[in-house]
Amino acid sequence: MEKEKPLILVSNDDGVMSKGISSLIKFIRPLGEIIVMAPDSPRSGASGSLTVTQPIHYHLLRREVGLTVYVCSGTPVDCIKLAMNKVCSRKPDIVIAGINHGDNSTTNVYNSGTMGAVIEGCLSGIKSVAFSLCNHEPDADFEPTGRYVRSITSWTLSHELPVLTCLNVNFPNVLVYKGLRSCKMARGYWKHEFDPCPRKGDNNYFWLGGEYIDVDRDSEPSDHWALSRDYVAITPTRLDVTDYGFMVELQEELNKL
Amino acid sequence: MEKEKPLILVSNDDGVMSKGISSLIKFIRPLGEIIVMAPDSPRSGASGSLTVTQPIHYHLLRREVGLTVYVCSGTPVDCIKLAMNKVCSRKPDIVIAGINHGDNSTTNVYNSGTMGAVIEGCLSGIKSVAFSLCNHEPDADFEPTGRYVRSITSWTLSHELPVLTCLNVNFPNVLVYKGLRSCKMARGYWKHEFDPCPRKGDNNYFWLGGEYIDVDRDSEPSDHWALSRDYVAITPTRLDVTDYGFMVELQEELNKL
Repeated sequence: MEKEKPLILVSNDDGVMSKGISSLIKFIRPLGEIIVMAPDSPRSGASGSLTVTQPIHYHLLRREVGLTVYVCSGTPVDCIKLAMNKVCSRKPDIVIAGINHGDNSTTNVYNSGTMGAVIEGCLSGIKSVAFSLCNHEPDADFEPTGRYVRSITSWTLSHELPVLTCLNVNFPNVLVYKGLRSCKMARGYWKHEFDPCPRKGDNNYFWLGGEYIDVDRDSEPSDHWALSRDYVAITPTRLDVTDYGFMVELQEELNKL
Repeated sequence: MEKEKPLILVSNDDGVMSKGISSLIKFIRPLGEIIVMAPDSPRSGASGSLTVTQPIHYHLLRREVGLTVYVCSGTPVDCIKLAMNKVCSRKPDIVIAGINHGDNSTTNVYNSGTMGAVIEGCLSGIKSVAFSLCNHEPDADFEPTGRYVRSITSWTLSHELPVLTCLNVNFPNVLVYKGLRSCKMARGYWKHEFDPCPRKGDNNYFWLGGEYIDVDRDSEPSDHWALSRDYVAITPTRLDVTDYGFMVELQEELNKL
């Protein structure tokens, strides 16, 4: 009997019509049966958000051999939850999100809708990988990522990841990579974050903007260290948030309150 | 010269008119100068989401001695960023979010707007604490939490937390607590997550719903273990997502690709 092909659930936060998700599908199509459930419009910065104050809707967009594409009115996390509950005939073997138009390394993990989808997959006990390219342009060139998107997906399908750990893969915006680096999350923060856009004399309207300030860009092997040196940065991302080192000390302090 | 009072930045995800944030302000008002920047409407499930496709707006709602309240059109994270950049005269001494109407323990950390605000504070280098009560009702009784909301806030103001660690405090929905427990994040997942709400014959409309399944509810000292035994659960929450244990092994695997 022929072995069943791996079931690959795909989503993103740039929306179903983005170039990044089309490139992703093209690159990984030889690896298995692909189901896409992606947002109907851009959801950049959606993080792990859920739609709770209104219903969500999905519909079939396209079906061909080995590929089924659905579009959803919700967030990336809604997409993963809905796909697993409503359209996947079995538990997916892997969840892949991206390829994101823009960097999701460092602390961006906390605001990224791409990572939101991947975290949802991982929390559901499925191996999960996010791919992002450090180029925000709608027509960014994803071709250089193809070989590694395919090999990393293939490797993940055939290996175990630790429980509650997923992969956050970021590609520098260059044509040739120096190699693949397993990285820690760099530390940094955003500065000067708002651009004024006054309306009818009201000066309290702003666009979110700003500049990312590295705190340890030169600290090997951080993800920003790797990206700035043309390496593909792969951050093994652990979803158990417990600070075990501080937990015992904190209990001693709480005993005094 | 009199010592400057601590500057306390407050937000939430249930919106500025919720009972939970009013209770929080009442409980911590003796501890410092309070600035509130809260969403203009409920943002439950907002996680760490950002508003990027439209401008955000804020305005002053109320100003009295020791308390200034602003309302914002954005998400909880937008609120913290905007407050720090536009209305705080100096870096806040602490960021407090809540009191949330509902449980934010376990993996809810990844979808909670309350935790989104607190994570943003912590990433900005500010001591940050989230308070949540395991009761979703709009008129939930927050009075039993008061003593501990005040003492935990006061303790945090006078002690250092580890870099990139914040506190996620969850109160069981009882009148008398057995004590305070420093906890690890319990493992679990959501099951059967969608309630159908067909519209004009289209059966693909759903409300997000479901049931939380504990994987290690009986594993002391997890947050769900503590809450189910009437303890206040305090999870020291670490924002460096790196899986250091897996990082080296992963590099060895990547070298083969």
